[in-house]
Amino acid sequence: MSVRDRLAEISEIGRDNVRGGYSRHLLEPAEVALRSWFRSSAEALGLSVEVDGNGNLWAWWGESRQGAVATGSHLDSVPGGGAFDGPLGVVSALEAVAILKADGWCPTRPIAVCAFAEEEGSRFGMPCLGSRLMVGEIAPEDALARVDRSGVTLEEAWRQAGLGVSTIGPDPDRLAGIDMFLELHVEQGLDLEDRGLPLAVGSAIMAHGRWRLSIVGEGNHAGTTPMQGRRDPVVALSSAALAVREIALERPAARGTIGRISVTPNGTNVIASRVDAWLDIRAHTDSEVRVQLDTTVALIQKRVAAEGCALEVHEESFSPLVLFDEPLTARIAGLLGGVPAIPTGAGHDAGVLSAYVPSAMIFVRNPTGVSHAPEEAAREEDCEVGAQGLAAVLRDLTGGASR
Amino acid sequence: MSVRDRLAEISEIGRDNVRGGYSRHLLEPAEVALRSWFRSSAEALGLSVEVDGNGNLWAWWGESRQGAVATGSHLDSVPGGGAFDGPLGVVSALEAVAILKADGWCPTRPIAVCAFAEEEGSRFGMPCLGSRLMVGEIAPEDALARVDRSGVTLEEAWRQAGLGVSTIGPDPDRLAGIDMFLELHVEQGLDLEDRGLPLAVGSAIMAHGRWRLSIVGEGNHAGTTPMQGRRDPVVALSSAALAVREIALERPAARGTIGRISVTPNGTNVIASRVDAWLDIRAHTDSEVRVQLDTTVALIQKRVAAEGCALEVHEESFSPLVLFDEPLTARIAGLLGGVPAIPTGAGHDAGVLSAYVPSAMIFVRNPTGVSHAPEEAAREEDCEVGAQGLAAVLRDLTGGASR
Repeated sequence: MSVRDRLAEISEIGRDNVRGGYSRHLLEPAEVALRSWFRSSAEALGLSVEVDGNGNLWAWWGESRQGAVATGSHLDSVPGGGAFDGPLGVVSALEAVAILKADGWCPTRPIAVCAFAEEEGSRFGMPCLGSRLMVGEIAPEDALARVDRSGVTLEEAWRQAGLGVSTIGPDPDRLAGIDMFLELHVEQGLDLEDRGLPLAVGSAIMAHGRWRLSIVGEGNHAGTTPMQGRRDPVVALSSAALAVREIALERPAARGTIGRISVTPNGTNVIASRVDAWLDIRAHTDSEVRVQLDTTVALIQKRVAAEGCALEVHEESFSPLVLFDEPLTARIAGLLGGVPAIPTGAGHDAGVLSAYVPSAMIFVRNPTGVSHAPEEAAREEDCEVGAQGLAAVLRDLTGGASR
Repeated sequence: MSVRDRLAEISEIGRDNVRGGYSRHLLEPAEVALRSWFRSSAEALGLSVEVDGNGNLWAWWGESRQGAVATGSHLDSVPGGGAFDGPLGVVSALEAVAILKADGWCPTRPIAVCAFAEEEGSRFGMPCLGSRLMVGEIAPEDALARVDRSGVTLEEAWRQAGLGVSTIGPDPDRLAGIDMFLELHVEQGLDLEDRGLPLAVGSAIMAHGRWRLSIVGEGNHAGTTPMQGRRDPVVALSSAALAVREIALERPAARGTIGRISVTPNGTNVIASRVDAWLDIRAHTDSEVRVQLDTTVALIQKRVAAEGCALEVHEESFSPLVLFDEPLTARIAGLLGGVPAIPTGAGHDAGVLSAYVPSAMIFVRNPTGVSHAPEEAAREEDCEVGAQGLAAVLRDLTGGASR
């Protein structure tokens, strides 16, 4: 097979006919179908598959569960996301195993191919949910109480999927058995396209936080209420969204985005009573994110108050700056032919794991530079080069010999 | 009974536990329950009930269908609306009939109590859908093709409710049988509260239009995409919403509102690719609305283009200025004790009918002035005064004699 063939197997799963691209959210039908596909693909390679207590998938090559090299990514997507963010890392890991098996390679330590649950946080709002639960960064009871857009709790979704609720939470034994983690991922920018190179390794992940801004005004009739004296949260949100942009533009390499909005009651002839908007901030260091947040919220607060509305700010997640393991990253860069190390603004399970296990990332060139959208792209030949590179790295890290 | 008792009968139907207030949308379960309630209430008064070909409800006092005085309003609500907008007019009409019957009144012409379908346009986007279909202002095929937020067409909803699709459209015979139409309605402002009066008659309805603004930008990753060069439709919408406010504030007595927004794909960590927002404009004359629209769209167009986004504007509805029948309105004002005539910014079925049948409105004082929101209010004693006033008007207009 090839990376192309494997991606083709899942290319019809979870297509979003409204938004375009794919919507594959935790434990919804499309994501469940991807889980079945993962199991059969891995079993076809002779790997033994298990679901851990946090809904993450593991496919093992080798009997031992100690000293493993794990590699993989995630299968879920943002709403209307691209075909590569997540699946490319899982597919490339399976293909790398296939390449090594075809070569008759006998690894001296176990290799695990994994797919982490809810990396995007698109259903329950917490990015890297599965890996964070595994390392113990989220309390199980907090995770179980999280609610999706339809009011379904994670606990309800978990039970409906037949998963055990009591097993959710830290999994130190599993973590202790993993010596290294590698995540291959499509690049989410144009750095490699500009450099004319198919691959890079990751140097760092920008610090990142998500906050829910709730703006409460006064609902009323759009026709009968004079413009003077309105307390319209849509107007307040508009000033707020411009503030997010203004502050982010002032700060080199910082990002500030509102991409999700919920208006109450959301009627054409009704002045809204409340707007919830989600603020996503990224910067090079944790304190830069905090300063940007404070500056942004202070300006928003002023503008929201000027509209006679009230503001509440609720932190949904905070992901500190990640610096990937330097020796491991340098070794991989060398094995891939001396590729560059580049930072990214996107969060990844490798970022979560890096605090506990030496972790590294491999990026595959993206000709559009677009991600989290249907236009996300990767050339077929680059994908195959990526899987071959990953196979070479696994061969080196599992230091065995061909039969 | 009383207006209070009748409102109490429906006070639990269609409560919206998320938005507060009521969500009673055409042919959804709550609105269907209100239809049953209407039928039994009218039948308990000895009226004979029918559903016309456009889903409007009619309860007849008298055998003839000619020279009728019709009175009523609507049962549907905006999302999270108040208890009075619509139901108060229907309940008061039923109560007025009850008062006349208790007096032994024998009208010399038929009286019809009616409830028009989808007055708010909250499900299918067209306000006064039922009355507009009846008078022939909307083509049946255009109505049947309208789509709700879940993608259900009006035709599908109609069939699911067991209504005949072939009967939708102009109903000239029914219209010809109605000599006058009266709509009692809660006031949607503070005019009567300021004047210290319980009732008024309506002089005019401001001209009103609804447009869908579609802003298309470029979806991408919120973390990896630099701020420079983004084409973010949420930022473009924000500038647009501020433009709506700016232009409306410049024009005396004009209103401009964005109360409904739909973001695609609406993910926290995703720069949106598209935003749809609904623009509601009202002014004293049709041309003022058109000029306000043109001025607003020109400014929005400039701001949307500055963000590198594209704008499309689609007209969803236009309701010209309504001047209610002067002789009828003066007569009613006199019968109510010389109450004032006041204009309103809100659309009503009486406004649609007024082009075809002498029509008038009675407003009941609203102590909060709020409408289209849970805080909408009417004092119990004012409601009873309203029904008694409506009974007195019907008595005068149906010129019979007590038995």
